[in-house]
Amino acid sequence: MLNVGLLGAGRIGNVHAKAISSHPGSELVAISDVNVDAAKKLSGQYGAAARTTAEIINDPSIDAVLVATSTDTHSHLIEAATAAGKAVLCEKPVDLTLERARACQRAAARNGRPVMIGFNRRFDPNFAALKAAVDRGEIGKTELLSVTSFDPAPPPVSYVKVSGGLFRDMMIHDFDMVCWLMGGLPEAVAAVGSSIVDPEIGAAGDVDTAVVTLHFADGRLAVIKNSRRAVYGYDQRVELLGSDGLLSAGNVLENTVSKATKDGVTSAKPEFFFLERYMRAYSAEWAAFVDAVNSGSTLPVTLDDGVNALAIAEAATRSAKSGQTVTLASI
Amino acid sequence: MLNVGLLGAGRIGNVHAKAISSHPGSELVAISDVNVDAAKKLSGQYGAAARTTAEIINDPSIDAVLVATSTDTHSHLIEAATAAGKAVLCEKPVDLTLERARACQRAAARNGRPVMIGFNRRFDPNFAALKAAVDRGEIGKTELLSVTSFDPAPPPVSYVKVSGGLFRDMMIHDFDMVCWLMGGLPEAVAAVGSSIVDPEIGAAGDVDTAVVTLHFADGRLAVIKNSRRAVYGYDQRVELLGSDGLLSAGNVLENTVSKATKDGVTSAKPEFFFLERYMRAYSAEWAAFVDAVNSGSTLPVTLDDGVNALAIAEAATRSAKSGQTVTLASI
Amino acid sequence: MLNVGLLGAGRIGNVHAKAISSHPGSELVAISDVNVDAAKKLSGQYGAAARTTAEIINDPSIDAVLVATSTDTHSHLIEAATAAGKAVLCEKPVDLTLERARACQRAAARNGRPVMIGFNRRFDPNFAALKAAVDRGEIGKTELLSVTSFDPAPPPVSYVKVSGGLFRDMMIHDFDMVCWLMGGLPEAVAAVGSSIVDPEIGAAGDVDTAVVTLHFADGRLAVIKNSRRAVYGYDQRVELLGSDGLLSAGNVLENTVSKATKDGVTSAKPEFFFLERYMRAYSAEWAAFVDAVNSGSTLPVTLDDGVNALAIAEAATRSAKSGQTVTLASI
Amino acid sequence: MLNVGLLGAGRIGNVHAKAISSHPGSELVAISDVNVDAAKKLSGQYGAAARTTAEIINDPSIDAVLVATSTDTHSHLIEAATAAGKAVLCEKPVDLTLERARACQRAAARNGRPVMIGFNRRFDPNFAALKAAVDRGEIGKTELLSVTSFDPAPPPVSYVKVSGGLFRDMMIHDFDMVCWLMGGLPEAVAAVGSSIVDPEIGAAGDVDTAVVTLHFADGRLAVIKNSRRAVYGYDQRVELLGSDGLLSAGNVLENTVSKATKDGVTSAKPEFFFLERYMRAYSAEWAAFVDAVNSGSTLPVTLDDGVNALAIAEAATRSAKSGQTVTLASI
Repeated sequence: MLNVGLLGAGRIGNVHAKAISSHPGSELVAISDVNVDAAKKLSGQYGAAARTTAEIINDPSIDAVLVATSTDTHSHLIEAATAAGKAVLCEKPVDLTLERARACQRAAARNGRPVMIGFNRRFDPNFAALKAAVDRGEIGKTELLSVTSFDPAPPPVSYVKVSGGLFRDMMIHDFDMVCWLMGGLPEAVAAVGSSIVDPEIGAAGDVDTAVVTLHFADGRLAVIKNSRRAVYGYDQRVELLGSDGLLSAGNVLENTVSKATKDGVTSAKPEFFFLERYMRAYSAEWAAFVDAVNSGSTLPVTLDDGVNALAIAEAATRSAKSGQTVTLASI
Repeated sequence: MLNVGLLGAGRIGNVHAKAISSHPGSELVAISDVNVDAAKKLSGQYGAAARTTAEIINDPSIDAVLVATSTDTHSHLIEAATAAGKAVLCEKPVDLTLERARACQRAAARNGRPVMIGFNRRFDPNFAALKAAVDRGEIGKTELLSVTSFDPAPPPVSYVKVSGGLFRDMMIHDFDMVCWLMGGLPEAVAAVGSSIVDPEIGAAGDVDTAVVTLHFADGRLAVIKNSRRAVYGYDQRVELLGSDGLLSAGNVLENTVSKATKDGVTSAKPEFFFLERYMRAYSAEWAAFVDAVNSGSTLPVTLDDGVNALAIAEAATRSAKSGQTVTLASI
Repeated sequence: MLNVGLLGAGRIGNVHAKAISSHPGSELVAISDVNVDAAKKLSGQYGAAARTTAEIINDPSIDAVLVATSTDTHSHLIEAATAAGKAVLCEKPVDLTLERARACQRAAARNGRPVMIGFNRRFDPNFAALKAAVDRGEIGKTELLSVTSFDPAPPPVSYVKVSGGLFRDMMIHDFDMVCWLMGGLPEAVAAVGSSIVDPEIGAAGDVDTAVVTLHFADGRLAVIKNSRRAVYGYDQRVELLGSDGLLSAGNVLENTVSKATKDGVTSAKPEFFFLERYMRAYSAEWAAFVDAVNSGSTLPVTLDDGVNALAIAEAATRSAKSGQTVTLASI
Repeated sequence: MLNVGLLGAGRIGNVHAKAISSHPGSELVAISDVNVDAAKKLSGQYGAAARTTAEIINDPSIDAVLVATSTDTHSHLIEAATAAGKAVLCEKPVDLTLERARACQRAAARNGRPVMIGFNRRFDPNFAALKAAVDRGEIGKTELLSVTSFDPAPPPVSYVKVSGGLFRDMMIHDFDMVCWLMGGLPEAVAAVGSSIVDPEIGAAGDVDTAVVTLHFADGRLAVIKNSRRAVYGYDQRVELLGSDGLLSAGNVLENTVSKATKDGVTSAKPEFFFLERYMRAYSAEWAAFVDAVNSGSTLPVTLDDGVNALAIAEAATRSAKSGQTVTLASI
């Protein structure tokens, strides 16, 4: 049984609390949050204790922590928790600055404890099935990957301002998808972005619509499309062309009903947002973490993966500004 | 909080145990089974007590029982539990004989406690969405309903022999679907069945493939197709033609991945069987039962619904033997 | 080069005129119609001569006639044309009465000329692909066939009155599909029909909605659903369950565009009616006729097929009236 | 009646010959080809005369020419034919060099005769339906366009060498699609390409896989993906995200049959290549040309459109070499 402390009792903390407590091999023993009431409320629901972050990290009976706090605390908490001997599952991104993330990476390496980054999409059953088919060689050699990732609605501008920008905050998931599905890091990145969904996002110095192409050293290509707004729901799709065929993972729809009338044939929309679409992924992510920690086997997503995705986000941010292709080696 | 006793710790009992204990408004306090070890094992998993059926029924602190025992005990347990003042959710069918089921119906009516029959498909999110669209009038007046219901593989012949036959055991779900979706009972039933999947099923006096047409007094029609074997998985679909259009509820697929190669475009199969397809339906069914019992509101499925479906099954069985249309009034 | 006379210059005659004149191996030389102006107009479009039916049948330079006249003339024209040595492609049905059709069948057999009946759906590329897959054994042994066939809108009641009724006029296509796809004739037929689309159709003694089940001697089953009204377009689908899987042929949609909005995902309707859906089938049908006549090989659809479909229609009509299963042997 | 001369009797010339002669308002009177036998053979099929290109251009009884010769002759033939007073429909691209194409554009403008470029995809019923929906405002303001265009198999390297490269030869269709669907020209282009399908294509200095992003002055974005090889067939899809939704145009499949077995659910592949997929588009393209020439109305595709697409191809070629975004103004 893995005793787990949850740092952060916000929206995503709630998701993780459920996953931790539903897993037969883990027990949610303590929860902290800067909002003490939130920690108390969530603790009450799951029979855990509301404690401070320091208490949780310093409690030797706690084996692992799940970091679901604000991004600016991630690096510090990874360092502190691994120094205290704990295994860590930390929400993405590792940090808003690549420099800080790399320092964290070095510190965690010295501490020698497992650190997994919460790229939950790898655990979505659909993307996982696509990845398995790629690994079985079902489409031969991979050549051209396309990732579509649209949110249903833009976040508040207040959030955008502290988010690190679309490439670090939103597209970072897709950068990890590209590395995971293509089995390696791109050599160069070219990005274009604009603010056409909400002019206030542009005024805040960010983009809301972007396309990034990624070039691998062996000539393979990937392209990512992001938009902060798809009014029909969370659009999360992947297509991978290979020498022997094409693999596609489509959206998960709200139901399988369709209606044919004189106006056409109407079917359901995609699941609304990440809580709906990726609920099963969060459970599978946690189960994979527990398995790896218990067995001492390789983590399915590592801190290195988190740093790599951040480096690509940095390259994309620079490319979108300069209009030039940016090599990863220059980052 | 509803204190619940579970009668039956077999495969479907396991499903219900999970639903009962996951629901915030119910607590699984006791489990019985003729196989005492099964009751003990399941009780252990959920922190419930393993007790006898009599103890559970006679325990005044238990508010409700879920009957998941063998079919020949259903009527008796409904009667005993309602006599003891408990609310009951009982698996289908009410009984193998219509006469006994009707006696149970009268007894339960006298006892005055809520009895719901486990027609879980009404709680499938897809069929529920279709029903809601019908009720909103989205296809106008309903005219012609088609239900496709194929199992992935036939049960053992030993099961078939005690099952009451395909119409009572398997198609009874579809008879309920027809009554529910069409909003009433058919007037007459015409059935044809044959044993072409497994000759041993025929040798046991049952059919494994059948088509039943149902005629409503106002001229509306329904047709049900059953097969005990669809090698590609559990095929559970509904189509309803109305004056303003057609509503269809398709299968739930294992994932959304498709693969295009020189051999064609291949996508996932339907979810394998009822445990996979209807897991969410079992949870929703239990939640609806708890809501109705707690609020005293009308049950979404009643014992009358269970008896009606059984009467149609009886009519279909007779029609398949005689080759003649059988009126429900004659049953 | 096959010199062809076309008897009938109505809507379906126009379709055939185009198919005949587009085929490199046939020449449309003459057209007749009771409406002489119609014959003249259509002849003008295709560089053919407008002549009387008698002139066409008696012209030894004409090798084949296509009969696209009103149903009550079909039997007579088949007899006259084959007596004059011509090959015949005749629209369905052979006749409104089975007795007359059988007399025609005997006469044509004596005359020894090829007679093909226009069951155009066999030549639809989708149904033909399904049939080819069945014949290659892709789903093993066939078990349960389902045919959905809905028209977009009911015909005028004046047409209904002289049509012979839904089973002879509309479902006859589906009876042929069943025999073709199942590879033989059913043993018994059970039908139910009602008039719920248009009460005037009921007042005229016909039905507008019907379900027919067909039982084969080896236990295999088929079911046909017909409605005179599907407001979303011509619904023409087939599903065939076999021991190794299910084959389905879906509708042909007007285009491949879909639109996702906050209201759902909307795609195109099925092609509106038979002229749109089956245009390619009419060309393929004519090409198959020309091939068979030129090569002396077996016709892909025979006069026997036409008589068989009519016999099933007769059985269905009787069954719908009596509520009893009717054997084909009794017809 | 429009008297038409066809210049070029190759594969695409054959397609056009059929479209011209099937149209009730045009007559194919003469065909030329450097391969005189090819011109004779095709002329024979359609009752046209085999003549020289000069004879056709100088024949005052010929109203229009369709240019389906090798690309290096297009500009010259457009100039000569318009100088001789003829309307012209010319296959894409206008020329391999932008400079020459622009000279042709000026000359044709002076000659004042209608010149249409054969961007056939605009006439595909699916893309046309998508465009019509955009124009009706069904997805609000357009924001992000995605064009997928994969050939089933790479052309011979001998062809690649004289083709002008993937951007001018293949992606030029997609550049026109982008301008057409977005209603204007992009401001800047960023391209990446590589040779991973066939190393000989790389050795010949070309790419076989490419991604191009296009930036509009108002911030809207488009992305095009090209591959010379999709083993499952011709993959031709468009997706357009707007403020109110997403429009998608999918592939046209070979048929509507699907097969469900224990191995999954398999459906048909996309139509194999452009002759299959775009046959209806070629007919519609010709009909639109005839309509515009006869009525004197605006051509649906102009020589300007052809020059614009070529300019974008030029920008993309430069960007792929330099790794920098290239503005259209610099071309």
